[in-house]
Amino acid sequence: RQRAMAAWARAVRGLLLDVSGVLYDSGGDGGVPIAGSVEAVRRIKASGLKLRFCTNETQATREKFVKKLQGMGFDISVAEVTAPAPAACRLLKERSLRPHLLVHDDLVPEFAEIDKANPNCVVIGDAAENFTYANLNEAFRLLIGMEKPVLISLGRGRYYKETDGLKLDVGAYMKALEYACDVQAEVVGKPAKKFFESALAEMGVPAEQAVMIGDDIVNDVGGAQRCGMRALQVRTGKYR
Amino acid sequence: RQRAMAAWARAVRGLLLDVSGVLYDSGGDGGVPIAGSVEAVRRIKASGLKLRFCTNETQATREKFVKKLQGMGFDISVAEVTAPAPAACRLLKERSLRPHLLVHDDLVPEFAEIDKANPNCVVIGDAAENFTYANLNEAFRLLIGMEKPVLISLGRGRYYKETDGLKLDVGAYMKALEYACDVQAEVVGKPAKKFFESALAEMGVPAEQAVMIGDDIVNDVGGAQRCGMRALQVRTGKYR
Repeated sequence: RQRAMAAWARAVRGLLLDVSGVLYDSGGDGGVPIAGSVEAVRRIKASGLKLRFCTNETQATREKFVKKLQGMGFDISVAEVTAPAPAACRLLKERSLRPHLLVHDDLVPEFAEIDKANPNCVVIGDAAENFTYANLNEAFRLLIGMEKPVLISLGRGRYYKETDGLKLDVGAYMKALEYACDVQAEVVGKPAKKFFESALAEMGVPAEQAVMIGDDIVNDVGGAQRCGMRALQVRTGKYR
Repeated sequence: RQRAMAAWARAVRGLLLDVSGVLYDSGGDGGVPIAGSVEAVRRIKASGLKLRFCTNETQATREKFVKKLQGMGFDISVAEVTAPAPAACRLLKERSLRPHLLVHDDLVPEFAEIDKANPNCVVIGDAAENFTYANLNEAFRLLIGMEKPVLISLGRGRYYKETDGLKLDVGAYMKALEYACDVQAEVVGKPAKKFFESALAEMGVPAEQAVMIGDDIVNDVGGAQRCGMRALQVRTGKYR
């Protein structure tokens, strides 16, 4: 992987790095770094390349997420992370939407500034154990009761790899609600074009000088390519 | 509803009756009969019409289901009920499939005769509270680990109405697994053609002399019409 990164690095000015499955494998224990990845981040930064961590993980606030990665030895700060929750907050504010949140408990603080009274939309993230029948049914009832149901999904991933095996991702539950309510979710996060565009803007690098590196052929590679970036699929993480 | 039934009755020899949302509204308390439906069943039987109860409910064995309806006053026996679980068992036997069951606890006895060791398929029913993240993830891991994933779904309903409101049905969770595993479920139960055909065979009435009565436009009405039956949608149950 490092050789591949080095080859790309000669041709580009900015790198977008997926995190889970590329830098580390997540897990109930916090996860473990993938061999060589701590050093790879250090070398990318030393090379003068612009770097942006571009994640769809929504099981924690960016603060908590970054703290975990720092604990593994990664050189990473909150300001370098592009994540779905802040993008969703921007969208909610723009459209005066008041969300019902079906997300992981640890993500809730990202929505602290958002009015959630009398919800007129549902925001779904990787809620993991919070995806109980009762919670999914509550979101369903709210949606089916809306004149125009609005479902905002923090990603559309099928599954991801944790240290103890594969786990269903938010996309599966998004599909369940889409089907039950006959609605199409609006996806915030990868592979949404807007998400990659804001990551590029935050880096100050145009698409044609940037490379996305990820383990997901749809969300990382496909999404980046549709924005005019080049993309590289690593064979770690969920790669099968 | 009784007038409509009477009008149909003059032209037909057999009736297929959906149960939930037509004869009663289900619920945690067992449910309540819909006004006039106990009497309607009695009158249909007295008229000499053939009658078949055609349900996609999979939260209980047929025995338990029938006992509940008898308790509400309905003239119904197990032999008059066409339900997805027995149809699934026939399919499993024909194809030597050994299921992992993601179903309601009370449905499990329907699969007593079926070899479930070392599963090579997943059977999903309306598992309700059993649709935990852990249980859905277990079914997902089994499927994604199969060379050729086989997912058998006991219906494809979006939702149904219980006494305390709408509830997500098996179809939503079927879609979640279909998406996560990139597989297409095989649906047993309504609206599968085979399911209606076996109900007709059990009644001994050809499609063109039978009428299906239900509250679901896709599963009851659409499914029956594709089999050459006439169909009637009642405005009780989940009708909106």
